[in-house]
Order: sequence, then structure tokens, then C-alpha cells
Amino acid sequence: MTVTVALDAMGGDRGPSETVPGALTVVRPGVLEVLLVGDEAAVLAAAGGALPAGLTVEHAPDAIGPGDDPAAVRSRPDSSLVRALAAVRDGRAGACVSMGNTGAVVAASLLALRRLPGVLRPAVAATLPAAGGPVLLIDAGANVDPRPEQLVQFAQMGTLVAEDLLGIDDPTCGLLSVGEEPSKGSQTVREAHALLVSAPGIRFVGNVEGHDLLTRRADVVVTDGFTGNVVLKTAEGTARHALGRLRDAAMASTRGRLGGALLRPAVRTLREEMHPDTYGGAWLVGLDALVVIGHGRSSRTGVASACRYAADAARRGVAERVAARLQA
Amino acid sequence: MTVTVALDAMGGDRGPSETVPGALTVVRPGVLEVLLVGDEAAVLAAAGGALPAGLTVEHAPDAIGPGDDPAAVRSRPDSSLVRALAAVRDGRAGACVSMGNTGAVVAASLLALRRLPGVLRPAVAATLPAAGGPVLLIDAGANVDPRPEQLVQFAQMGTLVAEDLLGIDDPTCGLLSVGEEPSKGSQTVREAHALLVSAPGIRFVGNVEGHDLLTRRADVVVTDGFTGNVVLKTAEGTARHALGRLRDAAMASTRGRLGGALLRPAVRTLREEMHPDTYGGAWLVGLDALVVIGHGRSSRTGVASACRYAADAARRGVAERVAARLQA
Repeated sequence: MTVTVALDAMGGDRGPSETVPGALTVVRPGVLEVLLVGDEAAVLAAAGGALPAGLTVEHAPDAIGPGDDPAAVRSRPDSSLVRALAAVRDGRAGACVSMGNTGAVVAASLLALRRLPGVLRPAVAATLPAAGGPVLLIDAGANVDPRPEQLVQFAQMGTLVAEDLLGIDDPTCGLLSVGEEPSKGSQTVREAHALLVSAPGIRFVGNVEGHDLLTRRADVVVTDGFTGNVVLKTAEGTARHALGRLRDAAMASTRGRLGGALLRPAVRTLREEMHPDTYGGAWLVGLDALVVIGHGRSSRTGVASACRYAADAARRGVAERVAARLQA
Repeated sequence: MTVTVALDAMGGDRGPSETVPGALTVVRPGVLEVLLVGDEAAVLAAAGGALPAGLTVEHAPDAIGPGDDPAAVRSRPDSSLVRALAAVRDGRAGACVSMGNTGAVVAASLLALRRLPGVLRPAVAATLPAAGGPVLLIDAGANVDPRPEQLVQFAQMGTLVAEDLLGIDDPTCGLLSVGEEPSKGSQTVREAHALLVSAPGIRFVGNVEGHDLLTRRADVVVTDGFTGNVVLKTAEGTARHALGRLRDAAMASTRGRLGGALLRPAVRTLREEMHPDTYGGAWLVGLDALVVIGHGRSSRTGVASACRYAADAARRGVAERVAARLQA
């Protein structure tokens, strides 16, 4: 079965110069094909003048930038992002990948695709590079003020994504809060806790705290999109800050500089482990096709792996399985 | 002028074996005196049998543990924490220090002390070890569901603490959100943004995101107590995880082990920089006396610096200045 992935070729900090090589890496005619949606001349130039079998270009004269207001997608029907999603809606592709800004991808997806039956609100599921493998944080930014019932659905959808796309057997699920006791947290969190205890389709292990995120106290961590977004960016910023400060401290002495030089391969391993290319990115779940949101800084490697995730999700029918899970 | 600090001698992971040496370090008879509140025998034993001038012990037969429910403070009048706060209320001490669990310290303080005129809700102001000095995060855990007007007061109280206790001139103040635009964030955050723009007594620089926390985009970062607590613990957990993973990566090769040995002093500097002893802890502001909440893991050095902060705050009349600032 051939799966076609619609790739927003203009998305990401470096646009076609990374997205097109990523598609070239991943394409397998008859198995995984890529519809490159973007400025035709730029796409062809990045491909060296012509596209090999399995790759097609669809011209889109407009592109949404990283700083553009997500609300603007409504008035940008000719942008590469909106056209890539239209290709999925019209059945010309089975899934969509964009390295564009998360808010814009979410807004455009909600306009172009249909909500699955039973889904209250789609959510962004993002992977975090924890000890011994990824942890899935859901919602990482789509819903800033969800109701408790919506948080329960995030838990159910996140569990399915962790099983199907991260390959975690019978994943545990925790609720992000400010203490382990069910009485801890905001009113929404306390109400969600009470519902999660008896919710079907999840293996609820109770509240988890900020310092538990990277220790895998739970495979799936449920939170609202406001906290999820802040937490994700705090973790990224802290990791960068800690490694940066270590470099500064090392550079301050000859001994430190030598030690730093010897440690370079180890630091590289760590950076790779924590780099968005490696730990995947994010999925928008709850719509009738899966949308993969790659990190804006992704290289061609990250683009290729996002396309593989998207094709994999389409092949397994993850979107449909979400609907079935919610109705269980 | 003599300032007496009431110290919860039983607080913290190691109780009197760290709190008493901390008090011994910091005491200066006639200048900074410490009232050690806790089990008299344990306190005297930790002091080597007798207390020098400037230190007094007040017996408290009960102690609240790190895992105890904050709500339990009401029924624990003989605990060291509640008695230390009573000493402040009764005028026998000018400020209180506890290394106990934040929730319990907040709950006990609200019971024992009076809210300052004009203060809607007291808040916890915690320091983060950012590039080039501390950043103040307020509220770090006292109010999980604050209203927008309360967030504005947190900004005003945080600004005063940053000026008076961290020595930052004319500190900038940012609102933690999921994007820079005023339209980003939960409903509470959007409403708070609109109020902060014209609030007196602060230098508002707009929204800041999770990755801006440690880059000092703002000296004071305002958020609700739920997000603040989660962010603080996420940052701590991520820093620990990154350094731990780096150690693992280094230990995997001879070259790495040698590099790690050479880098040890640099790593130590970094750990110290990020250790709770160095970056201070937290203040509960908005009550008629200042309460300093140290980290449970604090050593005697951390206890001593918390006592210095508390004495400093009492001498400068920071609590009263908060009331004046809010009424400006």
C-alpha cells in the first residue's frame, strides 16, 4: 500500500533547503511517496532541478512564517501549509508534515480537517527525551483552557499515540500537578484527577510533578496546553542553559578546556539525544488525519523522520483508532 | 538594632543537624540573633550541649514532616513551624525561616500572621539561577487559581522583593505565557496582561516564554502558583537530568572519563551555582512579617543565608514597604 505524505516544503527555519533533502532521503516509490507543497521553483532548485520517482511538487505561492499570527491562516489559502492540509482533506495524501509554527499548524488543521467523532478537542502530543526513552506530553499547546473531561480525552489519545507510534506497551499515564495527592492542583486538575481514576483505556498512576517529567514516572503526562507549552520550553531552555554554563565554566581554565575537548564526543551524544531531530517532535491528534509538527530547527534528518512517523501513522490508521478508543 | 529571626529548627531534610550549625554561623549578638524553635534536647545536642550568646531555644514537642498535608498545620499548634511563626506574631522575632515543606509553611503563615492592608493574596517569590544573576519567579506555589488582579499584585510585590532583597535596580517584569503577543495565553493571563500594561509600580515588558526564564528577558516573572511550581520543578529536574546524562556519556569511554575528571572543578562550580544553598530559596510576601522558605535539601550554608535574608528583610521593613507599594 502506498502512503503519500503531504509535506509543507516552506515550513521550518530553513525551508526547502532542509525539507526537500529530507523528502529525498525518505522517499520509496510505491511505499512512501511525498507531495512537496511550496514554491515550485524553490523546491526544484533544492532538488537539483528535477524530482525523482515518488516525489511530486504542488505549487503554493504563499508561505506562513514562524512569526505569523496563527489566526492569519484563515486568510492565507494559498500558503504551503494550508494547501498541504487541503491535499490530505481531498484524499491526495494520507497525512501531513509541517515544520512550521505550532500555533499556525494547529489553526490550519482545525480549519482543513474534520474532528473525529467523539473528540471534544484535538491536542498536541509532544515527545520529551527522558531517561531510557521518550515521554509523551499532551497537550503541549493546542488548548490553553481545557475542561476536566477534555484532559481525560488527552490521556486516552496520548495513551494510544504512545502505544502505536512510540511502541510503548501498556503505557502508564500521569496528571501533571503540584503534588502527588489528589487534592493538589488547580480546580480543573483536581476534577480531572477524580475522572481519570475510573476512565477507560488508560493506566492512570496519579499525579506527577515537574521534576518527574524526565525520570519517566509516567510514559504519558497529561496537562493543559498552557502549562504544557511553558513546561516544554522551560525544559528546552534549562538544558541549553546548563550545557552553556558548563562550557563557560570549562573555558575559564586550561584544565577545563582540555577536559572539554576530551568530553566533546560525550557532549555531542547528549546534544543529539536532546535534539529535536532525534526525539521526534509532536503530533496533532483528534482529527481525521494525523498531522506531524516538526521542530522549526529540524534538519533534513528531522524532516525525514517526521515523514516516516506520518506515513507510519497513516498506515496503522492511528487517527481512526483514536476515535475507536474514545468510544470504548 | 537587634533583629531576632525565628528559625524552625526541625525543618528541612536533616533538621537540627543542619539548622543549628547554620544558626551558629550566622549569629552576631546584638545584631542578628536566632530563636531556635524545636525539640530542646535535639537542638542542644546539635549545638554541642550549650548555646552561645545570641542563640535561644524554645521547646516545641512536635514537628511537621516533608510529606505531611499542609492542611494539618491547623491541628499541630505544638509543631516547631507553628511555634516559630507564633514567635513572630507575638513580637519575639522579626522574621521567620523554615526549610520545611512549602505548602505547610504557607498554610501555617496564613494562619499565624496578618495579611497586609490591600493585599489580596500572599505569594511565594522564588529565585532561579539565571545567566548573570537571579530571576524572581512569583507566584511559585501559594495560589493555584489566582484572578488577574492578583497576578498584578504579584508583579508589584515581586518588583519590590527584587529591588530590596536581590538588589536589582528598576527591575523589569514579564508575564509567563505561551507567546509574546498579548492575545496569547489562558483567559486569566490575557486579562492580567491587559491590566499589567498600565499597573503602577512595575516596569512591564510584556509576555515571556518558558525558554526566556533563564536568559533574563525579565528580572521578575509573574505566573500563577500552579504553573510556577511546575516550572520550578521542571527546571530543577531538567538541569539534574542533563548533568546526569552528561556524566553517563562521559563514563562510557576512557577518553570521556579523563575529560570528566579534568572538568570536575567546572562541574562543581556549576552545581554550586544551581544549588539551592546558593540561589537562596523563596519568600512568602504579603503578610505583616516576611517568611523565608528554604529548600528542604539546604545545608548549614543555605540555612545561614536564609537567616541573613530574613534579618535583612526585617531591618529594611520589606513587609511594610509591600503594603505601601500596593497602595501607591
